[in-house]
Amino acid sequence: MEQTISLVGCGQTPFGEHWDKSLRDLIDEAITAAIDASPCTALDIDMVIVANMIGERVSGQAHLGAMAASMLPHHPPALRVEAACASGSIAIHTACSLLESGRAQNVLVVGAEKMTDASNEEIAAALMGAADSELDAPSGITFPGLFGLVAQRYMHEYGLTREDLSCVSEAHHRNAVQNPFAQFRKEVPAQQISASPLIADPLRLLDCSPISDGAAACILSNTHASSIRIAASQVSTDTVSLAQRPSLTSFNATREAIAKALKEAGVTRSDLSAVELHDCFSIAAIISLEDMGFAQPGTGVQLYKRETGLRINGSGGLKACGHPVAATGIKQIIDVSKQLSASKARWGLAHNFGGTGATCCIHVLEHANG
Amino acid sequence: MEQTISLVGCGQTPFGEHWDKSLRDLIDEAITAAIDASPCTALDIDMVIVANMIGERVSGQAHLGAMAASMLPHHPPALRVEAACASGSIAIHTACSLLESGRAQNVLVVGAEKMTDASNEEIAAALMGAADSELDAPSGITFPGLFGLVAQRYMHEYGLTREDLSCVSEAHHRNAVQNPFAQFRKEVPAQQISASPLIADPLRLLDCSPISDGAAACILSNTHASSIRIAASQVSTDTVSLAQRPSLTSFNATREAIAKALKEAGVTRSDLSAVELHDCFSIAAIISLEDMGFAQPGTGVQLYKRETGLRINGSGGLKACGHPVAATGIKQIIDVSKQLSASKARWGLAHNFGGTGATCCIHVLEHANG
Repeated sequence: MEQTISLVGCGQTPFGEHWDKSLRDLIDEAITAAIDASPCTALDIDMVIVANMIGERVSGQAHLGAMAASMLPHHPPALRVEAACASGSIAIHTACSLLESGRAQNVLVVGAEKMTDASNEEIAAALMGAADSELDAPSGITFPGLFGLVAQRYMHEYGLTREDLSCVSEAHHRNAVQNPFAQFRKEVPAQQISASPLIADPLRLLDCSPISDGAAACILSNTHASSIRIAASQVSTDTVSLAQRPSLTSFNATREAIAKALKEAGVTRSDLSAVELHDCFSIAAIISLEDMGFAQPGTGVQLYKRETGLRINGSGGLKACGHPVAATGIKQIIDVSKQLSASKARWGLAHNFGGTGATCCIHVLEHANG
Repeated sequence: MEQTISLVGCGQTPFGEHWDKSLRDLIDEAITAAIDASPCTALDIDMVIVANMIGERVSGQAHLGAMAASMLPHHPPALRVEAACASGSIAIHTACSLLESGRAQNVLVVGAEKMTDASNEEIAAALMGAADSELDAPSGITFPGLFGLVAQRYMHEYGLTREDLSCVSEAHHRNAVQNPFAQFRKEVPAQQISASPLIADPLRLLDCSPISDGAAACILSNTHASSIRIAASQVSTDTVSLAQRPSLTSFNATREAIAKALKEAGVTRSDLSAVELHDCFSIAAIISLEDMGFAQPGTGVQLYKRETGLRINGSGGLKACGHPVAATGIKQIIDVSKQLSASKARWGLAHNFGGTGATCCIHVLEHANG
């Protein structure tokens, strides 16, 4: 990245069930926390980017750019972006472009989702908006169903066992115990995951990220400095429909995005100490590790079975932190930043995708003192 | 604008009722037309930005960035933006930023909306997503109602008559006769407008832009040249809720955006020959002319009553062209471009807002041979 874009303030709500808070309340809380944590005042913000997926359908509220800008005294320019579950990282990417263009100096990015106000059926239908409404949805399949197919095929191709799969959520839950913002801060043994209710064979309840409310915000600046900078911001896409893919067990958008991101940052995989990846379902974590080149096809789960130099979803990931859809991509950036700061490591990566990997957005972060 | 961003290809579907086409079909048709009209091949497109407001709610389809990118053989990076009825121009603004950032060279921007598949009640509810879901919507008011309040107050403050108001739609309908893409290509006399059914007093049916299907696309490039360039791209915001405004008869976001846009382009109002403005309701056209400084407060309608050097909504505007929400802002750019090319005039302007003026995005276009 040619310009220095610094992460100068981060804030988030706890992820979980916020019965007493609206979408607007969640956004307000995260924005306030991010500004308070930054060297900026609200008046320094010259652009607001809001990431949200299901607000119009579930809360009757579109136009969230202006809504968030209204919370600042000077109503800066604003817009909303959406790329299904990758909305948060796509908002970060858009912010980077605006900073690089010279049109902004301090961009406030906030991702938020209010999901628990709607029934599970309504949320399942809304999330299917991330899939292909003509080629996938008419079959009646849901997102757990789509990833159930992926998991079935992966087990067929590579011999992954139920016990293997349970290692993923087990590790993520273990990590979340230390995360005060996580929805589920408790260890869950693999046996309990394997015995949890069947959702979409072979995926069980504890393979699936939950329905969550939450918001996460950060301020990206080319004016104020911090110890964390965005070293790469890359997006790739693939067909939205799973039916149009040559393979169910590898997501090409991740493969493309990681290659571009490593090149932009000028790093290799072995330079990375922390990765927050998109474990919407346990199988997605395994495939993402392979697509990012941290493991050979069929061997991703091994990274959960032995010590490596790479910390995977140290926050707890989507499974244990919760997954308020458009907040996730921003929360990942915040968590990578925290982990680099805490460990004094230099490089970390956030991997966020939408749909069954149709949009993938990857950011590399560098800690100046790492 | 420091960089030369050229408009190198435009395409649109006719706006209207497309019972035989889905949201995807409309996007495909507009994209194909834009690429065919450009010096680019599909493979030159290195970013896709989709503008859409109600697709998830009405068509069950979010994730439209990747969906549109899927229509190109190489699946370029993509995202969706939304700012209610200003979504189209906000997509153009985002494209300009991406080009200026150096991250893209040829950005395909497409705005689309499929509205006629849903009931009028469902569309009215979906459009209320552009208003404030906590402060405005719970009153039961609809968008015609919000603009009915604005018109009532305007008549009270300035003595505008019913006959005055009808001049607006009459002029726009007259212009649309020559536009092959307009939904209503027929003249409508002022008396007929004044006698049309009452929708939200004092607004009548023929004061209101219709429910429409349609898509519009363009390619913006910093590599390929054309005779039309984007000379300014500016966004401003205001409170989403009308209840939080100091005035009902002036929209501050328009006032801010025009000042910034004229400054960026280095032009004055008198340099402009053509303006496409956001006449979602007839009263909005009058207020917008005043907020943009083409008329003093209370006198905007006079520009419809006498010859001036400024052509207003030569396309027919939202009223007569139709208003497939997120397509409108892009279609305005296309129409200004056409008018500058046809008249050999140099400067034109597109004014697009969302909600009751909570987001306003203004573009100034320059014709090189004008």
